[in-house]
Amino acid sequence: MRPFRGPNFSLILFFLILHIFLLLPANGVHPLDPLTPSELNQVRTLITKSHQDVTFHYVGLDEPDKPKVLSWLSRNQPPNFFHHRIAFAIVRTNSQTHEIKIDLSSNLILSDKVYDGDGYPMLNNEEQTAAGELPLKYPPFIASIKKRGLNLSEVLCEVFTIGWYGEKNTKRAVAVMCYYVDGTVNFYMRPIDGIMATVDLDKMKIIQYRDRLMIPVPKADDTDYRESKQDTHFDTRIKSMTISQPNGPSFTIDGNNVRWANWKFHLAFDMRVGPIISLASIYDHDMHKYRKVMYRGYISELFVPYQDLSEEWYFRTFLDAGEFGFGICAVPLQPSTDCPPNAVFMDGYYTTRDGTPAKTSNVFCVFERYAGDIMWRHSETILPGDTVEVRPDVTLVIRMVSTVANYDYIIDWEFKQSGSIKVTTSLSGMLAVKGSAYTHKDQIQEEPYGTIVAENTIGTRHSHFLSFHLDLDIDGDANSLVKAHLQTVRLTNGSSPRKSYWKVVEEVAKTESDAKIRLGTGATEIIVVNPNKKTKVGNNIGYRLIPGSLAGPLLWEDDHEQIRGAFSNYNVWVTPYNKSEKWAAGVYIDQAPGDDTLAKWTLRNRDIENKDIVLWYTLGFHHAPQQEDYPIMPTLSGGFELRPANFFDRNPVLKVKTPKPVKWVNCSA
Amino acid sequence: MRPFRGPNFSLILFFLILHIFLLLPANGVHPLDPLTPSELNQVRTLITKSHQDVTFHYVGLDEPDKPKVLSWLSRNQPPNFFHHRIAFAIVRTNSQTHEIKIDLSSNLILSDKVYDGDGYPMLNNEEQTAAGELPLKYPPFIASIKKRGLNLSEVLCEVFTIGWYGEKNTKRAVAVMCYYVDGTVNFYMRPIDGIMATVDLDKMKIIQYRDRLMIPVPKADDTDYRESKQDTHFDTRIKSMTISQPNGPSFTIDGNNVRWANWKFHLAFDMRVGPIISLASIYDHDMHKYRKVMYRGYISELFVPYQDLSEEWYFRTFLDAGEFGFGICAVPLQPSTDCPPNAVFMDGYYTTRDGTPAKTSNVFCVFERYAGDIMWRHSETILPGDTVEVRPDVTLVIRMVSTVANYDYIIDWEFKQSGSIKVTTSLSGMLAVKGSAYTHKDQIQEEPYGTIVAENTIGTRHSHFLSFHLDLDIDGDANSLVKAHLQTVRLTNGSSPRKSYWKVVEEVAKTESDAKIRLGTGATEIIVVNPNKKTKVGNNIGYRLIPGSLAGPLLWEDDHEQIRGAFSNYNVWVTPYNKSEKWAAGVYIDQAPGDDTLAKWTLRNRDIENKDIVLWYTLGFHHAPQQEDYPIMPTLSGGFELRPANFFDRNPVLKVKTPKPVKWVNCSA
Repeated sequence: MRPFRGPNFSLILFFLILHIFLLLPANGVHPLDPLTPSELNQVRTLITKSHQDVTFHYVGLDEPDKPKVLSWLSRNQPPNFFHHRIAFAIVRTNSQTHEIKIDLSSNLILSDKVYDGDGYPMLNNEEQTAAGELPLKYPPFIASIKKRGLNLSEVLCEVFTIGWYGEKNTKRAVAVMCYYVDGTVNFYMRPIDGIMATVDLDKMKIIQYRDRLMIPVPKADDTDYRESKQDTHFDTRIKSMTISQPNGPSFTIDGNNVRWANWKFHLAFDMRVGPIISLASIYDHDMHKYRKVMYRGYISELFVPYQDLSEEWYFRTFLDAGEFGFGICAVPLQPSTDCPPNAVFMDGYYTTRDGTPAKTSNVFCVFERYAGDIMWRHSETILPGDTVEVRPDVTLVIRMVSTVANYDYIIDWEFKQSGSIKVTTSLSGMLAVKGSAYTHKDQIQEEPYGTIVAENTIGTRHSHFLSFHLDLDIDGDANSLVKAHLQTVRLTNGSSPRKSYWKVVEEVAKTESDAKIRLGTGATEIIVVNPNKKTKVGNNIGYRLIPGSLAGPLLWEDDHEQIRGAFSNYNVWVTPYNKSEKWAAGVYIDQAPGDDTLAKWTLRNRDIENKDIVLWYTLGFHHAPQQEDYPIMPTLSGGFELRPANFFDRNPVLKVKTPKPVKWVNCSA
Repeated sequence: MRPFRGPNFSLILFFLILHIFLLLPANGVHPLDPLTPSELNQVRTLITKSHQDVTFHYVGLDEPDKPKVLSWLSRNQPPNFFHHRIAFAIVRTNSQTHEIKIDLSSNLILSDKVYDGDGYPMLNNEEQTAAGELPLKYPPFIASIKKRGLNLSEVLCEVFTIGWYGEKNTKRAVAVMCYYVDGTVNFYMRPIDGIMATVDLDKMKIIQYRDRLMIPVPKADDTDYRESKQDTHFDTRIKSMTISQPNGPSFTIDGNNVRWANWKFHLAFDMRVGPIISLASIYDHDMHKYRKVMYRGYISELFVPYQDLSEEWYFRTFLDAGEFGFGICAVPLQPSTDCPPNAVFMDGYYTTRDGTPAKTSNVFCVFERYAGDIMWRHSETILPGDTVEVRPDVTLVIRMVSTVANYDYIIDWEFKQSGSIKVTTSLSGMLAVKGSAYTHKDQIQEEPYGTIVAENTIGTRHSHFLSFHLDLDIDGDANSLVKAHLQTVRLTNGSSPRKSYWKVVEEVAKTESDAKIRLGTGATEIIVVNPNKKTKVGNNIGYRLIPGSLAGPLLWEDDHEQIRGAFSNYNVWVTPYNKSEKWAAGVYIDQAPGDDTLAKWTLRNRDIENKDIVLWYTLGFHHAPQQEDYPIMPTLSGGFELRPANFFDRNPVLKVKTPKPVKWVNCSA
């Protein structure tokens, strides 16, 4: 036996390595970080090894269970507390949908289940492109184009999901409909209406074709929106202006962790829903600590039902996130136009059809917003010596733009120093228009299902509903929903010269059915409170939902598309936290009958009082198009705000200073 | 006779002078310009000559009849087409109210009528100050203060209008209530509740006094909001940022005429309502001409009913414009905080108690707003070669801040290149709070009429309603109101796989009662159209009201204060144009029973179809205070938008270029 000569170096090395391994997980990832390109590749490699002819439809983080994350957070543990970083993939092979879970840390497939329920996964871009090219080689279609005197090389086709209208589905089918380019990039204004092909996506072939009627294709004139194609410009009077931060931004981005002013949160990209804000906490300067506000917030689903009953239109009732991927459709943001000059950009990664990761550069921008607005102010003229105190409002914005075919959705998550989280959704891009023989409104005899926006062009009526999944954890995860009714009291006993006043009657929602709410008149305030904590003077600690852009449902509740987009039945819903209830219209949306929706989940009428609850807010727009929307739509915005309501003991921005003025010297421009 | 030697020079001189006189009126004023200081002085001189001991309550332009202005505009005549520039004054003398019209051009009193109806004119600042000082020399009040152990020199009193609760009024009375300063500028948080004096304003003496109950005065601690009084600051992480326009602003201000991008309008200050936007027209680049949008737009009245029934509170149901003057209460805007660094300022003038003009410097700011928002965009990824077109949104803002005692109203009129006029009202300043024995919510036994926001401090519930007078002249003055109902159609005949869809059913409001509308669900769109004009493809030319911040009435319609603030019964009203119907709660508001209101005018149920109509929009907030509102309120905003709806044949900003980027060189900061 060797004499003992001191420490055993190989043992020390072993423990050292173990230590590093325990403290620093691969890449130092946060448990909620999205999959990295190398992790996406790892998923592809593992799955393509075990399956042949596999196509990828979704790959994302299978986020750790919430209690684990909360416990990890509270103990301030290293990220690798989560020994197993798990990926979740939805793939198709052999005309079957597989749900696969992969342990990235041990590089193993944990589970691989065939999904045999209704509905199909998200479409990938590549199969849409392939399906869109099929008509161009399909003789009956070629004949249709020829019959119309059009040039096949100028035809471009797009894929439309077909919804579900009671059929027994045995195949992944989509409708393919076409546009005429010929002299404009704005082919959306030139539908070749009346022709529809149906494509089997798995077999990638046309299974049905119909050339139903000849409708004039609208002209290309005046449709192109590119700056280079405008003959004259009108804004020579607008002089240049810019936003400058000579000392750089006030926020830091460390991996996916963002810190700014009194806020910190985690920002991740997901190919299905786009931006996910997690673990948003706000620093309380009186309590000297960060306090929880939102565990996870994202756009859970979109529902865009068109209102045209014709054969090529009635089924256009899109659920954009679950059908096309709101994240897949995100576009690279243009510096200085999509975001102001002071913005910082982040990239996003998603999985393509064959599993290869694709990068969307500049998928998010993060910037400080100063619009000249006022955070708080007062001029005191009554006291001797003028007191005027004004604080300009600087906020932090996270922006993504998702271009789902014709429509551009601009999504802003805005954090305010006052504690508010404001979400703004702005719509631009192109209308979905229908070709028509009409060149003037006076010719219209039957229901046009829209507005004549130009000759031969009907802008079809539709609605947009966005479901926001807002897993609020107001100062802790056990929360309740309070409906604060502003209630009129009639005075009849002559006790006051007044005959009425209003008071606040608070009602705590006990179960899910109590929390299905249609808003509108402003007489009910929606507050999420932590019933286990009080302010110093005894108020419930809470956050109030200030609704905006309310649009009620206009379709019958038993109509097929409305069953699928049933989250639009109410402006507000509350569910108890359930990791599997992420997407308000279900996991598998394409051609699904709407069995796995927020409306169905809440039928169980679970308890929601003093539980870990999720607030779902439905933002809506009804859009009866106008000529100003042609050929491209000026932005229309709507949103909502989550505003502290007795969360703080007092105004949290009282002590915020006016940012120092910028004094440029020696400048020339 | 002198031989003819050429032109007669004296005759030429005569014609030359005549010509100048005709073309250039005094000061080159626009017919809608507010009265200048010299004109205000002229009014004072004339009135004080004919009346003794006169006090001034309102002096403003008696604007020329609308047909005259329109005809003047259409003929492109010089301003002095209006030979008689008329001032309208409301004064008090000998305990009577006089309405006096003065021809400024001929320096003559045109008419002088005693008003003997109900209600009294606006209070002037000086009488409020005088009334507020009365208690301080009133022995019973001094005794009350002593009894409470307070220091009289730290007491400050304010005037409160008392509304009307069925009394027979014979005098101009106000309530005077007091606050304790002692160590804070935020005396609003320190009411000395339970004491009330009633003052006869004409006699300027206390006519009633009551010390009803002793209530603790809330502490001064943590109430001061001045930057210099904060011990620590929290925003060291917010770095400075600025907005720069190296080549200056893109707008011009010529007198009161503002031109910017495709807009031109006239901006005037009025001591009662603040900013008045007149003759707003937008340039149509397809038609090569300016087209009318709004003849006159302003805040007609505000209604702020509090919801506390106690003796010192029940009557606090203020009508701020008609009682205190929303313009009088406007405060000088602070450069770089109230408005961004690129703002340009304008001054305003009003009449004080003795008729002397007073100036409010920087009463308006005008600035171009760039918040990083997008005017329109699209990314086209389907066509070969990426097409991305994005236009940042630069708008023009007119801002005024009116501080009506504790509350600060920030009013923005925003003009967009897309043709929208967006109005935003933001509320800041201080809550009206009530002293209380309670230091914790658990102690509360009876209805507190509010929220305990700090120890001994109840933030009283209240609502804010703002009535916007919007005399739209959409492409001409004969307009109609269209209610576009988004109507669900149920399909039962199996003609479609769909069971329902929505269509648009337009209803033209024929009379005033058709146009009293409560909004909320978004299922009715409000459009003002010009039924005499069509777009090329035959749509009615119109502008749509996009409502925001809807708050319905919560008081009973027959309650006194609700009769006075009855404009809040509906979100939308329409009246035929009538020069005398300017102020939604009437001309004489103070102590008036509400006989001269929008609600009363519209009982005549006049025809409004294809007439020169005025749209009245009621913006509202219900405010159940929160601790975050203490000791000063973070801004809460709401607004509405007037958006072109088939006004243009197509997107009016299609050809707007991206402003040139600013490239600074040689800068240091």
